[in-house]
Amino acid sequence: MKIKKSGEKEGMSVKVSAYKGMRDFLPEDMLKRNFVISIIKEVFENYGFEPIETPAIELWSVLSGKYGDEEKLLYKFKDRGEREVGLRYDLTVPLARFVANHLQKLPRPFKRYQIQPVWRADKPQKGRFREFYQCDIDIIGVNSLLADAEILKILYTILKKLGFDNFIININSRKIFKTLVEYLQVDEKKEFLIARAIDKYDKLGEKGVKEQLEKTGFSENERGKIFTLLEITGTNSEKISKLNKIFEGLSTREPFIQEIQEILKYLEYFSVDEKYINFNPFLARGLDYYTGIISETTLTTPKIGSITGGGRYDNLIGIFSGQNIPATGSSIGLERIITVMDELNMYPFDKKTVVQVLFAVQDEKLLKKTISLTEELRKEGIKTDLYLGKKDLRKQITYALNKGIPLMLILGEEENKKGELTLKNLINREQTRVKQDKIINHIRELLHE
Amino acid sequence: MKIKKSGEKEGMSVKVSAYKGMRDFLPEDMLKRNFVISIIKEVFENYGFEPIETPAIELWSVLSGKYGDEEKLLYKFKDRGEREVGLRYDLTVPLARFVANHLQKLPRPFKRYQIQPVWRADKPQKGRFREFYQCDIDIIGVNSLLADAEILKILYTILKKLGFDNFIININSRKIFKTLVEYLQVDEKKEFLIARAIDKYDKLGEKGVKEQLEKTGFSENERGKIFTLLEITGTNSEKISKLNKIFEGLSTREPFIQEIQEILKYLEYFSVDEKYINFNPFLARGLDYYTGIISETTLTTPKIGSITGGGRYDNLIGIFSGQNIPATGSSIGLERIITVMDELNMYPFDKKTVVQVLFAVQDEKLLKKTISLTEELRKEGIKTDLYLGKKDLRKQITYALNKGIPLMLILGEEENKKGELTLKNLINREQTRVKQDKIINHIRELLHE
Repeated sequence: MKIKKSGEKEGMSVKVSAYKGMRDFLPEDMLKRNFVISIIKEVFENYGFEPIETPAIELWSVLSGKYGDEEKLLYKFKDRGEREVGLRYDLTVPLARFVANHLQKLPRPFKRYQIQPVWRADKPQKGRFREFYQCDIDIIGVNSLLADAEILKILYTILKKLGFDNFIININSRKIFKTLVEYLQVDEKKEFLIARAIDKYDKLGEKGVKEQLEKTGFSENERGKIFTLLEITGTNSEKISKLNKIFEGLSTREPFIQEIQEILKYLEYFSVDEKYINFNPFLARGLDYYTGIISETTLTTPKIGSITGGGRYDNLIGIFSGQNIPATGSSIGLERIITVMDELNMYPFDKKTVVQVLFAVQDEKLLKKTISLTEELRKEGIKTDLYLGKKDLRKQITYALNKGIPLMLILGEEENKKGELTLKNLINREQTRVKQDKIINHIRELLHE
Repeated sequence: MKIKKSGEKEGMSVKVSAYKGMRDFLPEDMLKRNFVISIIKEVFENYGFEPIETPAIELWSVLSGKYGDEEKLLYKFKDRGEREVGLRYDLTVPLARFVANHLQKLPRPFKRYQIQPVWRADKPQKGRFREFYQCDIDIIGVNSLLADAEILKILYTILKKLGFDNFIININSRKIFKTLVEYLQVDEKKEFLIARAIDKYDKLGEKGVKEQLEKTGFSENERGKIFTLLEITGTNSEKISKLNKIFEGLSTREPFIQEIQEILKYLEYFSVDEKYINFNPFLARGLDYYTGIISETTLTTPKIGSITGGGRYDNLIGIFSGQNIPATGSSIGLERIITVMDELNMYPFDKKTVVQVLFAVQDEKLLKKTISLTEELRKEGIKTDLYLGKKDLRKQITYALNKGIPLMLILGEEENKKGELTLKNLINREQTRVKQDKIINHIRELLHE
């Protein structure tokens, strides 16, 4: 790298900022993000899922035609060889391309997870970013509803581990819209129109959804019938009974009802507490590619939209490989989860730094000894910062306090003569002298290790 | 996401590939990459360094004029609002922008590390990618050579921990080129020309470097004198003595010699074995921004170029903030390290999967029990894959063998009657029956946990 010198005066300030809608993460942000990501990864791997990564840039031919109206939100450009390319917009289309390219090498079933940033040329606003992490888990090559149930159990386990308790995993089957189409006696292609309209219920409310249904050709009677789905209440099995009655005599009733019953049975096998599962016949998920069980997790408070979303999509993964490859999976809304955990202060730590001990540097003559003691701590796995700035002790204490470092060690001439160290506990402000050869155990105790 | 249906027939194959020069990482690649990254992070944090992240996209005004001739290798494009932007090319310029934007919030000294992909619109070739991870560590706001020494100790510790022993950390001070300029009695601006030319020695050899020096105006006598640096051999202190003699009487000799002596002293304080440190007066690092100690790590075999590179750069971090902020740091060549570790099979494991146990699924009647036992293993932290494909047992064994899963559990009717499980050890092909309530301990033992 070469810095242009011309016109650049030393000390001259240039006004700069990050690109709008994208974020810098400071160490204390990273501490929280890494905590959440590490729990997610731990659960994924505990369930036998394995990580993959795909490139930031994909050929435009891979991306185009996959995102419908949203295609305009892709970062698209030409490379130096005039090839049209785009930035990763989600992790699902790259997965389909990945599966096509590595089909022979991949196990079947293929259980993968992927945690990478995606980019969207959207208008930045509160909580909506142009760069954010997506976190996806999918099972490729399995028809069985066991796979759908396992994904839901994983979501449940992760949320519990992160400390959430006020969540509901809403489930439904996209097959309900086939049944609904038969029930309404409308063209079967209208299935997607219903799903897309209902999906906007949270945003537009009843009036808005009804308007959209009207616009796409549903009569008042039909619109009313669609909205009866909202009125089906009770326990999960009560709702199933009610729908079973409403849809009586329809040929598409059985596959739908059976699917819901089977997923609920499997969730019981997986020991998912039923109170977290809500069969919601009005859940749609607007994307056209879903074919079976769909799910969305919401929190009772705060209201922040869904924190997971996914389902079965049996016709997408094969589009590049020309094979029929069933698949089911879910996205975990990492950024929303972090936002809520920040808001509710849900982290099981209040530290702002990874550093456990600051070793002060005071006396040039004692430098060799100071470094050697610091290195001993590090060798024992104690995260130790050796202060490298000015030797003023007050500055060093301020540095430790500002960073939130809990412990500080000082080696002065007097301490050294006695083979001791001064240990400052910056949490309770206590100060003691400790023998140098006892320091590791002493610190371990204080750090509750 | 909506899939375009028009023209897209189900089962129709579309030929696709990843964008050239960028890589997909399969689970077994990720296992190795994550191993290397986790060791690097562990050492960084053990030394009190903390992670940050910056966005993939930066405003063009931040990037332009920072990379000299290499600027043409940046991915540059316009966003939807016609703003000129570029993709992250390295982690140093973003760091300078980051420091300017968060100056008030950052501790001083600020010790940060950053591991993120960067993008270069380069011609792809063996070992050179358009997307690769960079891994940087820097100390911001410290003049002391202690900081330079600590960085070198960290590099040393990481390489040792990864299993390298045949490495040499070459060090020099950029101050040597000021002394050389005085020695040659040429214009002091020529310092950079010498550094840039010498930096290409590995690529161009003596002849090529001499040609470049000639082209930039150095006489034959001057070129010869520059090359005497190559002839200075011996131990580190012998080389210092020799240079001390050659540069006798020059006013710039002292600062240079002192700097080398001091860094060697500090490296001794940090217990870095001297045999890994080579004071190499011919080490240049071509980048104009270095101001003090510079370093590069090479392997004796295989010949792969440098696997770390860095130095002190006191005038770069402040360019956006208008302050004078000293800094020193190093890049670790993650991709090259992984390449070498792959080649020499240096990983302390030969597994291809994170999965420790495959739980077979055979008998529909025993499904509930099978899942409940699988969940028990998972609760105990044993990474367990529940087989979700077809129930044919031979297929399941093949799946486990292909993935390299070491253990397999089977619950058949007979096993269940006796409260047992069949445990297949797929490494030594032994098969035993184990009581269901003893299975956790049994597996732990086999996994050597």
